[in-house]
Amino acid sequence: MSRLFEQHKATLEAALAAAASRAYWSAYPEVPSGKSYGETAKDEGAAAFKAMLGQRFALDQPGSGAWAGAEESPYGFPLGITYPQATVAQLVAAAEAAQAAWASASIEARVGACLEILHRLNRRSFEIANAVMHTTGQGFAMAFQAGGPHAQDRGLEATAYAYAEMKRVPARARWEKPQGKGDPLRLDKDFAILPRGVALVIGVSTFPTWNGYPGLFASLATGNAVIVKPHPGAVLPLALTVRVAREVLKEQGFDPNLVLLAADVPAAPLTKELVTHPAIGIVDYTGGPAFAGWLAENARGKQLYVEGAGINTVVIDGTADFKGMCQNLAFSLSLYSGQMCTAPQNLFVPRQGIETDEGRKSFDDVARAIAGAVEKLLADPERAAGILGAVQSPATLARVAEAAKLPGVLLAPRPAPVAGFERARTSTPVVVAADARDAALFEREWFGPIAFVVATDSTAQSLALAAGCARRMGAITAAAYATDPAVLAAAETAFRAAGVPLSENLTGGIYVNQSAAFSDFHVTGANPAGNACLTDTAFVAGRFRVVAVRRPAA
Amino acid sequence: MSRLFEQHKATLEAALAAAASRAYWSAYPEVPSGKSYGETAKDEGAAAFKAMLGQRFALDQPGSGAWAGAEESPYGFPLGITYPQATVAQLVAAAEAAQAAWASASIEARVGACLEILHRLNRRSFEIANAVMHTTGQGFAMAFQAGGPHAQDRGLEATAYAYAEMKRVPARARWEKPQGKGDPLRLDKDFAILPRGVALVIGVSTFPTWNGYPGLFASLATGNAVIVKPHPGAVLPLALTVRVAREVLKEQGFDPNLVLLAADVPAAPLTKELVTHPAIGIVDYTGGPAFAGWLAENARGKQLYVEGAGINTVVIDGTADFKGMCQNLAFSLSLYSGQMCTAPQNLFVPRQGIETDEGRKSFDDVARAIAGAVEKLLADPERAAGILGAVQSPATLARVAEAAKLPGVLLAPRPAPVAGFERARTSTPVVVAADARDAALFEREWFGPIAFVVATDSTAQSLALAAGCARRMGAITAAAYATDPAVLAAAETAFRAAGVPLSENLTGGIYVNQSAAFSDFHVTGANPAGNACLTDTAFVAGRFRVVAVRRPAA
Repeated sequence: MSRLFEQHKATLEAALAAAASRAYWSAYPEVPSGKSYGETAKDEGAAAFKAMLGQRFALDQPGSGAWAGAEESPYGFPLGITYPQATVAQLVAAAEAAQAAWASASIEARVGACLEILHRLNRRSFEIANAVMHTTGQGFAMAFQAGGPHAQDRGLEATAYAYAEMKRVPARARWEKPQGKGDPLRLDKDFAILPRGVALVIGVSTFPTWNGYPGLFASLATGNAVIVKPHPGAVLPLALTVRVAREVLKEQGFDPNLVLLAADVPAAPLTKELVTHPAIGIVDYTGGPAFAGWLAENARGKQLYVEGAGINTVVIDGTADFKGMCQNLAFSLSLYSGQMCTAPQNLFVPRQGIETDEGRKSFDDVARAIAGAVEKLLADPERAAGILGAVQSPATLARVAEAAKLPGVLLAPRPAPVAGFERARTSTPVVVAADARDAALFEREWFGPIAFVVATDSTAQSLALAAGCARRMGAITAAAYATDPAVLAAAETAFRAAGVPLSENLTGGIYVNQSAAFSDFHVTGANPAGNACLTDTAFVAGRFRVVAVRRPAA
Repeated sequence: MSRLFEQHKATLEAALAAAASRAYWSAYPEVPSGKSYGETAKDEGAAAFKAMLGQRFALDQPGSGAWAGAEESPYGFPLGITYPQATVAQLVAAAEAAQAAWASASIEARVGACLEILHRLNRRSFEIANAVMHTTGQGFAMAFQAGGPHAQDRGLEATAYAYAEMKRVPARARWEKPQGKGDPLRLDKDFAILPRGVALVIGVSTFPTWNGYPGLFASLATGNAVIVKPHPGAVLPLALTVRVAREVLKEQGFDPNLVLLAADVPAAPLTKELVTHPAIGIVDYTGGPAFAGWLAENARGKQLYVEGAGINTVVIDGTADFKGMCQNLAFSLSLYSGQMCTAPQNLFVPRQGIETDEGRKSFDDVARAIAGAVEKLLADPERAAGILGAVQSPATLARVAEAAKLPGVLLAPRPAPVAGFERARTSTPVVVAADARDAALFEREWFGPIAFVVATDSTAQSLALAAGCARRMGAITAAAYATDPAVLAAAETAFRAAGVPLSENLTGGIYVNQSAAFSDFHVTGANPAGNACLTDTAFVAGRFRVVAVRRPAA
């Protein structure tokens, strides 16, 4: 039995219990406090980040000897970090060489190493938070939570699922078939786990760790070597992760090339060559639908897990807490400048208005109240900067500018200055009033802080538009506000059929864009927003195979 | 709780226990005896089969009103049965209309119905045995066992896996997140199973029920409507299955169109149109690699489970029971005229010979002894007919004739008359001596009673050839004979890396081509012989999705 496995066994067991009950649980403290992480951790994390700027990021892995990197902080400065470059052939050869011994190790040895990697990543959450903040543009608090402990929880969840699934196959069995009065037929059978890999994890620019860890740990735990290909704009958080993983693997006597960094730059992308290499058996991808489509065409015969994007909707039929609803939605539209794959885009409201605890509200009342709540939420510059963070990609700012020119703008976007970062790329949300007839406008993805409040003939039409769009274009979340149980039931039926998880009447401190490890299944895989779910059994079961040997029993 | 579920719960629980332990277990008696099935069952089954010949096979399902069918018994007569015809649009519309209520039923209601269908199929095993015999060409004993109880066991196994997997997701959860000194955040969450379907099961001509039931029951249990598209040469066994399923579903108040027959004829095939219909979400296919390749190209975005074919090998290095080895191999080569996807094709023997309990045997000794064992096994015509059965496809007989013209024939094929069926299409095996240099010859699939005994430089070369061929062309089984533990270890390593289950030193009443439900994983999915395994979790986990609703707790 592995020492690391024993050491982290209680965490694993708690994770398994939480995944089974889907009740609240978290392994890693989400508050960036000195009490949990040590009083010096915050400063040390910031210092460690600063010390990496402008330097080579050393990783003792096979490569070409060249160094490259082109990350720019959305807060307005180049990171200046370069990463060791390698050819696809070098990476694949190193991964294949490392894989056999890892695959033959015990399940406990592999899972124990994964748990230790997660533990060490947790201790470095402040350093990772700085790296996430200055690649994705997230505000620090979110970069810490989502990029640190919440991402680690998702990695732990995947590790736990992988462990449970592998342990369902016994290592050996005696098979004894009765033969009437004669001796039974007796066979001894040994069952071994065979990795499917080499695995490839393709990182996303907005949530490199949160979306990258599930595939990384699920593949690694099941015996695969993993090549991590970060988005060229968000390399550092995954580079740190690879470094920690390699350290632990090496200490445990394994080949550190079980986890390799494939850091490319936009001018010389590696992804397509990696995906189509015959040695790659598993591909995890988080990102936009265009490349997801390319993968579906080109990753044939490989195990492909896609977390994509979609158009998320809110259906408003009525509420017993009008102010709470508007505040809740304002936060969901503002958080990380709408750059979450779970953020709502289209809010459907009947044109004849809705009933609320404040009496009947017309469509215009509702639309203006939501826009007003966004404005109020972001009135204080310091709070606004913390919630909004910065905008990861210039293309998103361009989209905001495009939306701001549409007719029906209820709330115009403006920059949201961040103290200490004068050149940060920022924007408050743009909120646009639209009509159900404008489907061509709002039934496309407007990624970023862009929302449409859409007037419909009825809530029935709202649901039909929302669910229909989800089925055709994909959706990751949906929300409904209603006081009539029949309307809620209709919403549940419509969104269930479209494969979209539904949040009802959120008015307090929970938001439609939040997805909790061990409890919320993130992306159903049941509409075009993705084919994989974080985390269900299907996410891990295809990453390994079982091979048996049988022989007559002695 | 469903009455049928309660009724069959003990069977389900025993199945789950067996699948977990991988020890011997079977739900359905494999011996076609009056004691198990009733003294009149055999005659009634034969009579029921005869009564269907030349008739329309009534199924009260939507269709075009036309009838067609072109089955010919490999034993030499046309069945003359016609089946109701339907367009793809009619089938899909009926399946989609049936699916919603089925998906909303309880897991127990769905699984209970599946268990009852299996139970009723079991009671009709003699009728199904006749149908299997006269479509596949299997001898009666095998048609009964493999087409009846063993197929039902595989269907039960898939149902049990589906049940276990669905039950891992709780129906509801209370999520309660502490907020320091404040009230915790509380959400109630409901989780629902969402079918992936409509599901399509594409049947094979040689084992229509054994290979068809896993996909059929896995998809049906997880909430999908299923369209069963039999091979046009082996419709009747699956038509009977569909009829039984529809009866049970209708009795339970469900729409019988949850299970539909898509019986086409070679002149007007439906398969490609079915596969590419957007409503089809799951495809199960058993059959040759050419169509498997078409599926990989054209079933994009669908859940595809392929049980294909490969080139199975035997590596002979030595034995402590020379006679037992030769007899065991002779049976494996002869059973159902080599038309099992698990039958060996290439037997590798070092050209310098092997050590045995009968002393050193030269390559020629070994090759001639195996050929001689086949000859002896099939010397008695009645026994030969029972073991060999008939040849399903004329193309297989043509292949035997081609092999018989090769240099190095050790045992020439001959017809194997079946009493009462003068026009049966039959052949004993052809055994050909070859050399490792002839890879172009033996590294192609010679489906049917065709085997090569290949002289190699060493057992190391034998293993390299066998494993290399498995990696490139696929393999479903492998066997090794050796007394040296180091040789067995080398064989285990080589075949494990190639994803092929290995049987060692089989000399008694167990054969390399036998695969037992609940214990043997059939097809690993780890080489080109298929991407799916009967049955592991990956075979069921992708057939459904989980969709949640969450709301603030009251």
